[in-house]
Amino acid sequence: MKLNKFESEVVNKIKIEKSKSGSHSPSIFTLASIIPELDITIDGCFLSNPYATNLFLDFMQSELIETGKMRDFLEYYPSQNRFIAEIIGNTINIPGDHIFVGNGAIEIIQAVLHRFISGKLLVTIPTFSSYYEFANDLTEVTYYNLKKENGYVLDVDDYISYVKKTKIDSIVLINPNNPDGNYITFSDIQKIVGELSYLKNIIIDESFIHFAYEDEDLKVMSAAKLIHQYENLIVIKSMSKDFGIAGIRSGYSIMSAFRVNQLLSNGYLWNSSGLSEYFFNLYAREDFQNLYNDVRRRYISETKIFINDLKQLEGIKVYGSKSNFVLFELLNNISAEVFHSKLLITHGIYSRLCYDKIGLEGEFIRIASRGFGDNAQILTTIKRLLNE
Amino acid sequence: MKLNKFESEVVNKIKIEKSKSGSHSPSIFTLASIIPELDITIDGCFLSNPYATNLFLDFMQSELIETGKMRDFLEYYPSQNRFIAEIIGNTINIPGDHIFVGNGAIEIIQAVLHRFISGKLLVTIPTFSSYYEFANDLTEVTYYNLKKENGYVLDVDDYISYVKKTKIDSIVLINPNNPDGNYITFSDIQKIVGELSYLKNIIIDESFIHFAYEDEDLKVMSAAKLIHQYENLIVIKSMSKDFGIAGIRSGYSIMSAFRVNQLLSNGYLWNSSGLSEYFFNLYAREDFQNLYNDVRRRYISETKIFINDLKQLEGIKVYGSKSNFVLFELLNNISAEVFHSKLLITHGIYSRLCYDKIGLEGEFIRIASRGFGDNAQILTTIKRLLNE
Repeated sequence: MKLNKFESEVVNKIKIEKSKSGSHSPSIFTLASIIPELDITIDGCFLSNPYATNLFLDFMQSELIETGKMRDFLEYYPSQNRFIAEIIGNTINIPGDHIFVGNGAIEIIQAVLHRFISGKLLVTIPTFSSYYEFANDLTEVTYYNLKKENGYVLDVDDYISYVKKTKIDSIVLINPNNPDGNYITFSDIQKIVGELSYLKNIIIDESFIHFAYEDEDLKVMSAAKLIHQYENLIVIKSMSKDFGIAGIRSGYSIMSAFRVNQLLSNGYLWNSSGLSEYFFNLYAREDFQNLYNDVRRRYISETKIFINDLKQLEGIKVYGSKSNFVLFELLNNISAEVFHSKLLITHGIYSRLCYDKIGLEGEFIRIASRGFGDNAQILTTIKRLLNE
Repeated sequence: MKLNKFESEVVNKIKIEKSKSGSHSPSIFTLASIIPELDITIDGCFLSNPYATNLFLDFMQSELIETGKMRDFLEYYPSQNRFIAEIIGNTINIPGDHIFVGNGAIEIIQAVLHRFISGKLLVTIPTFSSYYEFANDLTEVTYYNLKKENGYVLDVDDYISYVKKTKIDSIVLINPNNPDGNYITFSDIQKIVGELSYLKNIIIDESFIHFAYEDEDLKVMSAAKLIHQYENLIVIKSMSKDFGIAGIRSGYSIMSAFRVNQLLSNGYLWNSSGLSEYFFNLYAREDFQNLYNDVRRRYISETKIFINDLKQLEGIKVYGSKSNFVLFELLNNISAEVFHSKLLITHGIYSRLCYDKIGLEGEFIRIASRGFGDNAQILTTIKRLLNE
């Protein structure tokens, strides 16, 4: 498998852009404006539920745009952090003084790493790079390697004993993990948090938890309620993925009231956008929650089919996912870079090349589940490319 | 002048809410949801150009909503900080590597105070309270008092000699200043920055500078271009006021490339909302800038009339403003609190009671210029209240 001339030219332009984006992919806007000849029809790099985006758009259309209320949300200052925290708290049944609202989860990750973390931070790799890139000067980042031979599944007992015998101050776990999508059950999370209650900080990032499930009811099993027992627990939640609204920058976290006070004592007053405040008001409403649950279930069931279909393909190895994306390894000496470029440039499908993911060795690509039609197109294209 | 029973009851509810908002006013959303019996028809607490909001809404309506492109701005991650900085840089003719984009100016104020300021910070009072409230533990905030007898106008020579004879590390000036609206001319700013080039930091907040002018052309005289000469200069710019878009949280700052790198080295990657990125794309377009200049001129001329009319009223003293708001003092022993409450509760006009502004002694109210009709209503109502 080789790139043609056009593909090679575009790849070079992308590399230049990518070098400016650090260890993250350039946004679809950035790519489109830098390389106008690119025609991206499916964004499988970004990990979100498109049906949830539709739902938010429907509410926004009828409640804000058609009524003219949109103006208020653009013109005026949104409410302060504590006020929005109360709305979220009522919705998730956690006291509002334990909630810190962020301009996306990324602002919370930054705040937590800059303000609360020092000493040895154990990051499980491969994982989302900001957890090591945003560390402050007082932090020594150390790594716990998820094993390829175990399919990057966390061995909970080995992990706990490793933390105990090493002088670790703080840990971070993403559940389900990015980029492999492996899920830690609630009872295992309880075990980890219980055994490691002496740590200074336990960060659990649940940005993808709405895509995971433990039973047929697809109930979301958040660690949030453990906050009442463990002062060192910090649960971080992006709304960008499960609710499909990365552009409005919504996120929140659950932590001790003492820590929320520390953050709000000299900052973070008006960090929500107007549309984020509107979203959290929807999030608190039963009518929205019911409709959201429908699109969540639909998306999970379509994602299951997508992952199973991918597993049938020869020439790739699919790693187990309980999230809304798939990590697959290209076998038979196919280069992930070439495969990724062909997908993007010739077929308009944007996926995530995983070369820069620390702790991931091999020819890996991560791709999101999108709508039913898009998934079919992704599947057909991957199949065709593998047969070339 | 006294409150009636209904007014007193509502005042008590507002006081409870206000105690949660610190030294800032509760947003109009917060007030509306806590005290539904309040019917606010004019928000003169928030300081923005409503014609600019209309302009943004018109562009958004035709370019995003009617085309269906709105979805992209809500669903996808916006571009990274540096990418948006380049767009702004091209527009204001400053290299992009000198620009840091913020989730509103408030995020930049916080970043600058937390990351760059230590030692003695001189804050000119009365002023925007975040400049002392957000200071970190390494900072000692000291105050330079603007004198009431001079109408809170900055005496530039006295200020420079005060800074020189006191061991000050950093200074902050808001131009035009909030809450009095006094403007420091560009030549005076040049003098201050030139004489105090030995300081660690000179912060100039130009969040209201589009409302100021020095000649008939109404040219905006920003200190931004001085960045090439002075490494210690930090210019902060909110877009919420002059462009009437507080809800999308847009702001930027101009500082040395070294400092921008420091901030971006471990954070602030995706702190813009999708609509903020869209706004900065508009900001870079000539068609938008031309139309914006029309609404800016219209608003400035209407604001001039509003301020002049207020100056004619007996019973209040109006302080000179080159911004889009007016600070006035109630004479004849009228309580600002009672006046503010009557304006809000009985007449639906939300103004800013200034009791908590450090450095402001007396019965002060700040009120924004709104559209022509709203200004007329504000004027009539104030006149009527003064004659009661």
